[in-house]
Amino acid sequence: MASTIRVTVWNEYRHEQTDQDVAALYPHGIHAAIAAPLQASGFTVRTATLDEPEHGLTTPVLDTTDVLIWWGHMAHGDVQDAIVERVQERVLAGMGLIVLHSGHFSKIFKRLMGTSCDLKWREGNDHERLWIVAPGHPITEGLGEYIDIAQEEMYGEHFDVPPPETLVFVSWFSGGEVFRSGACYTRGRGKIFYFRPGHERHPTYHQPEVQRVIANAVRWAAPTSGAARVFGNTPALETGV
Amino acid sequence: MASTIRVTVWNEYRHEQTDQDVAALYPHGIHAAIAAPLQASGFTVRTATLDEPEHGLTTPVLDTTDVLIWWGHMAHGDVQDAIVERVQERVLAGMGLIVLHSGHFSKIFKRLMGTSCDLKWREGNDHERLWIVAPGHPITEGLGEYIDIAQEEMYGEHFDVPPPETLVFVSWFSGGEVFRSGACYTRGRGKIFYFRPGHERHPTYHQPEVQRVIANAVRWAAPTSGAARVFGNTPALETGV
Amino acid sequence: MASTIRVTVWNEYRHEQTDQDVAALYPHGIHAAIAAPLQASGFTVRTATLDEPEHGLTTPVLDTTDVLIWWGHMAHGDVQDAIVERVQERVLAGMGLIVLHSGHFSKIFKRLMGTSCDLKWREGNDHERLWIVAPGHPITEGLGEYIDIAQEEMYGEHFDVPPPETLVFVSWFSGGEVFRSGACYTRGRGKIFYFRPGHERHPTYHQPEVQRVIANAVRWAAPTSGAARVFGNTPALETGV
Amino acid sequence: MASTIRVTVWNEYRHEQTDQDVAALYPHGIHAAIAAPLQASGFTVRTATLDEPEHGLTTPVLDTTDVLIWWGHMAHGDVQDAIVERVQERVLAGMGLIVLHSGHFSKIFKRLMGTSCDLKWREGNDHERLWIVAPGHPITEGLGEYIDIAQEEMYGEHFDVPPPETLVFVSWFSGGEVFRSGACYTRGRGKIFYFRPGHERHPTYHQPEVQRVIANAVRWAAPTSGAARVFGNTPALETGV
Repeated sequence: MASTIRVTVWNEYRHEQTDQDVAALYPHGIHAAIAAPLQASGFTVRTATLDEPEHGLTTPVLDTTDVLIWWGHMAHGDVQDAIVERVQERVLAGMGLIVLHSGHFSKIFKRLMGTSCDLKWREGNDHERLWIVAPGHPITEGLGEYIDIAQEEMYGEHFDVPPPETLVFVSWFSGGEVFRSGACYTRGRGKIFYFRPGHERHPTYHQPEVQRVIANAVRWAAPTSGAARVFGNTPALETGV
Repeated sequence: MASTIRVTVWNEYRHEQTDQDVAALYPHGIHAAIAAPLQASGFTVRTATLDEPEHGLTTPVLDTTDVLIWWGHMAHGDVQDAIVERVQERVLAGMGLIVLHSGHFSKIFKRLMGTSCDLKWREGNDHERLWIVAPGHPITEGLGEYIDIAQEEMYGEHFDVPPPETLVFVSWFSGGEVFRSGACYTRGRGKIFYFRPGHERHPTYHQPEVQRVIANAVRWAAPTSGAARVFGNTPALETGV
Repeated sequence: MASTIRVTVWNEYRHEQTDQDVAALYPHGIHAAIAAPLQASGFTVRTATLDEPEHGLTTPVLDTTDVLIWWGHMAHGDVQDAIVERVQERVLAGMGLIVLHSGHFSKIFKRLMGTSCDLKWREGNDHERLWIVAPGHPITEGLGEYIDIAQEEMYGEHFDVPPPETLVFVSWFSGGEVFRSGACYTRGRGKIFYFRPGHERHPTYHQPEVQRVIANAVRWAAPTSGAARVFGNTPALETGV
Repeated sequence: MASTIRVTVWNEYRHEQTDQDVAALYPHGIHAAIAAPLQASGFTVRTATLDEPEHGLTTPVLDTTDVLIWWGHMAHGDVQDAIVERVQERVLAGMGLIVLHSGHFSKIFKRLMGTSCDLKWREGNDHERLWIVAPGHPITEGLGEYIDIAQEEMYGEHFDVPPPETLVFVSWFSGGEVFRSGACYTRGRGKIFYFRPGHERHPTYHQPEVQRVIANAVRWAAPTSGAARVFGNTPALETGV
């Protein structure tokens, strides 16, 4: 692992260019809003977006990425399968992956989960409270008991993902729903964190607690240096038995 | 759920037709050897093989299958993606799936796991002992502390699957390896059990303890009748708040 | 396992004898209200209460109990440690245990969990909605997407238990809290299910969905016949290596 | 968390004073052999032993301990219950705990697990190979695929502990057994790691890979600063609903 963790923030970056309300909230794109506080925290941060060549996720970029953050919504289908496969390979080899909000329906998340990743949703004025159910987990470092978000899109159960290996947050929504909103997985050598907030029409990524969770998750998901996976035909070991 | 559990045993059925040693062990195919003791246990059992139309896994067949058993090895690539997708849909909707031995590399297992599903292996004369590490689990019903298989192909770690939700068996091999050889997962409403034995060149599926595990796993993986998954846009519930 | 599952419903049985409101809801005790629908479902059901000799949990009773259900609240401290130890031994040997509501603070549950089992609470008029997050799990058999309880005592996070091996229900409360309200554990050969409802001042155990969950949990927690735990000094196995 | 992690290595320290063979391997006690490489790694390290007042685990010591390491074997019964309770409280509040080898039978480990923690064993000349089954886990940092220990006491399944939340190592023994030899748990805010090696009559704690695992586990188990557990009666939150 490099001495500082190298983060690539990937964003679809379509809403911001077509919807004035979203552009007002995120004038340089959601990726820029996510990247800035990470940079301020001392990480080495790049961004990449859908409409760049190879979606900005060239092999050299991925080979020098410790943790990839993914935000997408309206154009999941435009992501090329070859790039999805490349990202999956890197995750299995150890790259961390943080999937945000509507990224639940991204090709890469569905591929790594093996399920539909579908859920309930409602755009409106729900109040969301994310309760920590794993106090002591590194992703909760520096937080209080819960995070309040005054207005957010609702996501409700059933969330069609495998049972999280560690469930960190459970959301309460004022409209009557709950949601497993912070969920840890491992796939190969890679660590994956799904984090439910933020809809593009809310200023969620400007909220310090949300930024803190993402920074904590980057540290948690960063790769380790040990124990490569070894496969294939192998002789009987000289065990001295 | 029907009053008896309806099982479909799927087999690639290629080795048995091209290799006399395999044919000697399994003259009617591995699927027949697996199906017979299940029938004797009172399950309703069908078989299906790769070279049948739609690999024998038509929509009517899958719609009347509670638990699907999968054995494949040399022809994983010949399984059509559309059928794989159909099977995945059925698993998410509740059908149980039991993946045997070299089925670890099948398209359906890799798709449901999200990983490479790779492993170490060695054909030879290894002695395998499958230790039960989850005593009390329904899949171990009626078994002793371990199952001994005098000669089997070795599969060794690292086995590149997500951490099992329940680890039932761990294998010891005389050549120096261990393997997580009985592993439970859920995907959607479906239950999945991976069970490591039997190589086509060993009489493993004729061994009563192995047959018992498969029958137990069928009962464990059979679908329940409750709690459909509901997704999509939803109004705020009338909670009376 | 006996041909029918043998259930013992244990109740502290103090509130009902000292509080007229509780007695009005449960005139024959909470244990009787829990036992009746289980009997109607075909289980063999006994009850036992705190003030009986050995709290009704003699060795012969426990030796013929497949699943023990536990309700306690105001007199946890009156349960003798020797009986707690006896119950623990039986759970490790395979007896199922279903702990209800305020039983979270019972000696037996704390001993099996290894944690404080503390939580937040509020008596009032909260509306509770228990969302199923594990569709397909046997404990959800026959249920819809959620269970609504018009009025219940609130239990909120943090619930100081080990991370559930399987999380089946998450409760939403109108006052702003969530709770992991259906949680599965294994200890030794025994299966344990904690189920959050019902406060003694609400008619919760008369609600059919709640009765259904308890009956499902009894089936899930019933012991299997296989794989005893074997411990102690052992010779090297004759492995033929 | 302090700027360096503060470790207390606790040792029963009886074998070394009564058995010349053990004393020859660990002339200053097992605790000293464990402490030295941790000190060299930059941790702040103290030791404590059974025969000190309060077993060396006074409240001031525990209050300034981030991670406690525990080795005991022949005198588990001599550890006072009040000290066990004090350690448990600290673990629930966030202190890490690393339990080594025969510490599986310590009062503190049994209390935190809720099970008998029993296992199989054999003193002899077994060869142990600890396979990593969680590559990428921080406890495996800097290791290869497995750790070979030329001679060790055998521990075999069934190991009567709750299913590990993360299983890191599985041991292969030349005599025919397997063992879940590296197991992660959380209890309250505290992280617990059980690590199987080293018997007092083998030079296991002088082996660099074993020292590396312990140092990695210390980093993994160190407490975080966030999200205290809050319990008790609570008003309905002003949710603006």
